[in-house]
Amino acid sequence: MSIKVITISRQFGSGGRTVAKLVADKLGWAYYDKELVKKIAAESGLAESYVLDSGEYACSTNSFLFNWAMSAESGRNPGTLPVSDQLYIVQNNVIRDLADKGSCVIVGRCADYILREHPRCVNIFVSASREDRIERLVRTRRLTPEAAEQLMDSTDEKRADYYNYYSNRTWGAAATYHLCIDSSVLGIDGTAAFAEEFIRKKLNLARKD
Amino acid sequence: MSIKVITISRQFGSGGRTVAKLVADKLGWAYYDKELVKKIAAESGLAESYVLDSGEYACSTNSFLFNWAMSAESGRNPGTLPVSDQLYIVQNNVIRDLADKGSCVIVGRCADYILREHPRCVNIFVSASREDRIERLVRTRRLTPEAAEQLMDSTDEKRADYYNYYSNRTWGAAATYHLCIDSSVLGIDGTAAFAEEFIRKKLNLARKD
Repeated sequence: MSIKVITISRQFGSGGRTVAKLVADKLGWAYYDKELVKKIAAESGLAESYVLDSGEYACSTNSFLFNWAMSAESGRNPGTLPVSDQLYIVQNNVIRDLADKGSCVIVGRCADYILREHPRCVNIFVSASREDRIERLVRTRRLTPEAAEQLMDSTDEKRADYYNYYSNRTWGAAATYHLCIDSSVLGIDGTAAFAEEFIRKKLNLARKD
Repeated sequence: MSIKVITISRQFGSGGRTVAKLVADKLGWAYYDKELVKKIAAESGLAESYVLDSGEYACSTNSFLFNWAMSAESGRNPGTLPVSDQLYIVQNNVIRDLADKGSCVIVGRCADYILREHPRCVNIFVSASREDRIERLVRTRRLTPEAAEQLMDSTDEKRADYYNYYSNRTWGAAATYHLCIDSSVLGIDGTAAFAEEFIRKKLNLARKD
């Protein structure tokens, strides 16, 4: 069976990560999210916490001083590529390697752009209403609604900056993806089921593939 | 049966208008596209050709001289609202009236924003690959690929300017709509069928509604 890949990008608080996990389970494919962080950390020599915080947010760590400090610490010459660029390159290689190994679902990290030449890749974006996203963040992260809203907007702004910086596409623009769904409409389970339907149609997968 | 409305926005050349017509036929609902132009022209006193050209493209007609000329011609004081704003207001009223009359599918013209308070409205955006859009425009409008590409980009830029000017949303951003589909994936018929499925789920419509 030829390898197929689903990439799922998502608004912060939309439940897109859960949708991605459900889709992977339904298809019986590997799911890469935190595993991706571990692999990227191992290959780059950077701490997992740094990869987790910075692998989708370039600009926050793109300062000269930060990069100089990181380069000096890791024994590289300060004149080499900024750490955020190095991280992107490692991330790029890890994602390509994973997509060569077997059918999988990958969350975030510019995977749709990195795998843009992949012949059997479906790119999905999950959004949700502001109210639902705030409610989910209040519930799962124990934040006040105000703090949830602020975190939500700042995180998505950073994700967009990162994606737009490393690709020639626009994060969150409908035309960037094959399918975009507002998870507030059908709920998390319904959205996953609907996305699965689209994926099966696009990839000509029978129900029991 | 309570009234339901589908709004379909689309990239130029994506086949979104055909998808909208097919969806209306499948649901057995009214379809408003050119009919909308006629109603808006009748209510505004503006020529159909002007409504057709300007009803989704504000900025091209937003000049002081143009507005002065139009206002003078129609007997209004030059000091009144710009014609593009007057047109938007009429369009707003016509769309609200239609959405009060019966279940329908409306193409473009900020209908999703105008009907943002409607409790049973599904907003869909149709995109397509650049290659498919150019090919469709070359075929249907007998243009060279270069002219098709130029027309495509300039039309979408104007549509975005218009929409963003009159709403607080972003044209073509995934989060603006409930569902966005790349029609290159499933084709026009497949996209219409998939959109219908989503609409039926969201609106709890049985197959024989």
